[in-house]
Amino acid sequence: MPNPLRDPSDRRLPRISGPAGLVIFGVTGDLAKRKLMPAIYDLANRGLLPPSFALTGFGRRDWSEADFAEIVHDAVREHARTPFDERTWQQLASGFRFVQGELDDPEAFDRLAQTVHTLDEQRGTGGNHAFYLSVPPKYFPGTLQNLAASGLAKQSNGAWRRVVIEKPFGHDLESARELDAVVSEVFPEDSVFRIDHYLGKETVQNILALRFANELFEPIWNANHVDHVQITMAESIGIGTRAGYFDGIGAARDVIQNHLLQLLALTAMEEPVSFDAQALRTEKEKVLSALRLPEDLDRHTARGQYAAGWQGGEKVRGYLEEEGVAEGSITETYAALRVDIDSRRWAGVPFYLRAGKRLGRRVTEVAVVFKRAPHLPFDLGATQQLGSNALVIRVQPDEGVTIRFGSKVPGTAMEVRDVTMDFGYGHAFTQASPEAYERLILDVLLGDPPLFPHQREVELSWRILDPVLEHWENHGKPEAYTPGSWGPDSATEMLARDGRVWRRP
Amino acid sequence: MPNPLRDPSDRRLPRISGPAGLVIFGVTGDLAKRKLMPAIYDLANRGLLPPSFALTGFGRRDWSEADFAEIVHDAVREHARTPFDERTWQQLASGFRFVQGELDDPEAFDRLAQTVHTLDEQRGTGGNHAFYLSVPPKYFPGTLQNLAASGLAKQSNGAWRRVVIEKPFGHDLESARELDAVVSEVFPEDSVFRIDHYLGKETVQNILALRFANELFEPIWNANHVDHVQITMAESIGIGTRAGYFDGIGAARDVIQNHLLQLLALTAMEEPVSFDAQALRTEKEKVLSALRLPEDLDRHTARGQYAAGWQGGEKVRGYLEEEGVAEGSITETYAALRVDIDSRRWAGVPFYLRAGKRLGRRVTEVAVVFKRAPHLPFDLGATQQLGSNALVIRVQPDEGVTIRFGSKVPGTAMEVRDVTMDFGYGHAFTQASPEAYERLILDVLLGDPPLFPHQREVELSWRILDPVLEHWENHGKPEAYTPGSWGPDSATEMLARDGRVWRRP
Repeated sequence: MPNPLRDPSDRRLPRISGPAGLVIFGVTGDLAKRKLMPAIYDLANRGLLPPSFALTGFGRRDWSEADFAEIVHDAVREHARTPFDERTWQQLASGFRFVQGELDDPEAFDRLAQTVHTLDEQRGTGGNHAFYLSVPPKYFPGTLQNLAASGLAKQSNGAWRRVVIEKPFGHDLESARELDAVVSEVFPEDSVFRIDHYLGKETVQNILALRFANELFEPIWNANHVDHVQITMAESIGIGTRAGYFDGIGAARDVIQNHLLQLLALTAMEEPVSFDAQALRTEKEKVLSALRLPEDLDRHTARGQYAAGWQGGEKVRGYLEEEGVAEGSITETYAALRVDIDSRRWAGVPFYLRAGKRLGRRVTEVAVVFKRAPHLPFDLGATQQLGSNALVIRVQPDEGVTIRFGSKVPGTAMEVRDVTMDFGYGHAFTQASPEAYERLILDVLLGDPPLFPHQREVELSWRILDPVLEHWENHGKPEAYTPGSWGPDSATEMLARDGRVWRRP
Repeated sequence: MPNPLRDPSDRRLPRISGPAGLVIFGVTGDLAKRKLMPAIYDLANRGLLPPSFALTGFGRRDWSEADFAEIVHDAVREHARTPFDERTWQQLASGFRFVQGELDDPEAFDRLAQTVHTLDEQRGTGGNHAFYLSVPPKYFPGTLQNLAASGLAKQSNGAWRRVVIEKPFGHDLESARELDAVVSEVFPEDSVFRIDHYLGKETVQNILALRFANELFEPIWNANHVDHVQITMAESIGIGTRAGYFDGIGAARDVIQNHLLQLLALTAMEEPVSFDAQALRTEKEKVLSALRLPEDLDRHTARGQYAAGWQGGEKVRGYLEEEGVAEGSITETYAALRVDIDSRRWAGVPFYLRAGKRLGRRVTEVAVVFKRAPHLPFDLGATQQLGSNALVIRVQPDEGVTIRFGSKVPGTAMEVRDVTMDFGYGHAFTQASPEAYERLILDVLLGDPPLFPHQREVELSWRILDPVLEHWENHGKPEAYTPGSWGPDSATEMLARDGRVWRRP
């Protein structure tokens, strides 16, 4: 009987050809519980993991293997996408191991090496192991050195060892290079998987399908027809308990350097020769290399910090009053900037990026805003309510695509007004979209890197952001903005100077 | 208080500047009861008729004015689009008159002239009158001559006289010219309003808005990107009681000569200088002049006649068994043909037209089918379920626009499949669309002719159809097809020879 959980496209997948194990550092963290453990279960449930698959947790806590299994169980029960199946669970859980230790303790890594070795012998993981560093970046160097010292990073006998690292990949170009130096000392570049979980999202991958599987869009996807592009990542929540991570980092480093510039690259790039990692990265790098900041950063960037106020009927704190935020912090919770792309396709078409917390609503979208028709053969007044055509890729939530265009208003006059047409993933497909982390963990185990940014992309992105961050550091404080608004006035003015307005998504 | 029945766009309308009266010949007919009378009431209800407006019925029946008012009342109650309002009705009904007589009786027309004259004096219709010939074409000559003889067609003192005629405008080029000779002897061309009610439809006018108010579509609206265009008018019903009209005429004369070729003209034409009649007709005529039939009409046309069978769970008669159909009739109930347009924009892009009765469902649409993307950088097999992009203008029912394009299938493989996005009039606008006849009657009274085909368009359309009709007449019988199907096999083969398939709308 076919498993209804397995969507039809799964059948066409390259299966993980050999055995594989995954070691997660930082199993007690939020990411592991909310995303990684459920994703592993969902992959198992979809039949995409090899029977020998083993999951080893590494953590400070004094847990038994049974304790660890219970933690995973609770995480799966709470956050997994597919229904709980006892047999899948039993099969999966029989491959759980837990190693107690500190990330800077070589002996703990020796114990880990022993565990991994035993798994190879008892469960048949065949020497293939991925190490997922779900820990703060300050622990990267020590962990990597210990992986090297314990022999865990060493590939031998045709088996593979891979490392998975989560953003931030440094906090500027220099630190990104330092981090890479540490990583590449231990793992060769083709064994390094940098997670930008946005690239695991269906809607982000669909940018490629939309552009290159169709005849409709690509002919108008250029400076002849596009006026500008807006890429937005808005959150309605504040920083919550994440001050320790966020303060001193800010919105630009947190999401523009990675997610938004990756969205830009996919939106703006030329057709790749294929969708393999080499071809895809080549095209993304070409776009990122061609990015140019405006000369006057005061006029073409904006930043803000949310003030105290009311949002959704609740009183909310200002950023400076959040627990853990340094007194007088100038970390921005809203960041916006204009970049141009020096290419034949995009010359003269600004890309506006913005990201912020405590905004009107949670939404991530890429909006391609077209020029007005070159001539409107309509009566005066008939097109007063006609805006610009737009194609909006709704990344999250409510995943899909919207096209805004002008249509005749029913009635006796030839009056034209904007209307929209929608495509929604939820309506179009019966199978649910896999979570980004399902896709990305599977790709790590498959050794399939197209959806993981290369170090060169990381560096090219910092190259764009560094001058902005430096400019901000030397020019006063971010402007306060009201919670639930769409950011500071300076952001509105920034676009108004270009004769444009931000979308209200 | 604003009248909620009056949609906002009505406020921007040119009001009928002076008084006006309308005379309908054929008031006992189906069209008058189902369309004309309700449309007149709806116009009154929307406040678009002048207070002095008068409606005069002319018919054979021995009706009093009260009888006539009751007939109109019943028609309005049953078919009007807007709610019944007693005050509107009283105001409107006070302008009702009825003249009893035969269409070939000069004395009856003298009585009509007297009635019209009295209306001018008593109700203030100011000498402005339109004559709506809702009668079979064989009565056109007599009626027109009597209008002339009684002086009713004569414009004087700045007042206007107009004539409205319904299709068919002849049954071939020659008879269309004869008819026009008769009409133009009595009325100058700018006083002749030929009704093609499709042009009164919102969705048909929206073709112009869609194309010329937007930047999105026009750049790909040409032979570089369009593979072919399909224009379909399908009915699920048979001929019913209309054998007297339909037999000997057939589907091509009935709707392709007028509705479908008008849809083609609007879809294919260049941007008009403005939407006034002169500019619009110029562009439509250019397209119709550039139409070319294939040389081999056997291979590029198809026709059929519905057989007896079952449809929608009911047993239905074949065309030849319908009441009133001549024995062995070769009248086609399904017609399809290919035309090409000899222009820079459309060279090499076939336009396929088809119309039929007893087909799968009732639908009229214009489908612009695009070429496949010139290259698909996807894995083998990933695009097996990807068709061609299409933009479909849904004329009726379920008015709107659909775009079909390829999207990534949720799942771990990069697989692409067709999805659709929709814009629906019903969802997008709160105000309902006026009926085609509301718009057209209003335009007659306004003297605004853009939505009425010019005699030149009529003749250009017959020029295309005549060789097809002649070919069919000399080459056997139409092929039988099953009720509820999508027409005869020869229609499928006709497209298959071109490597294409008909849409299943």
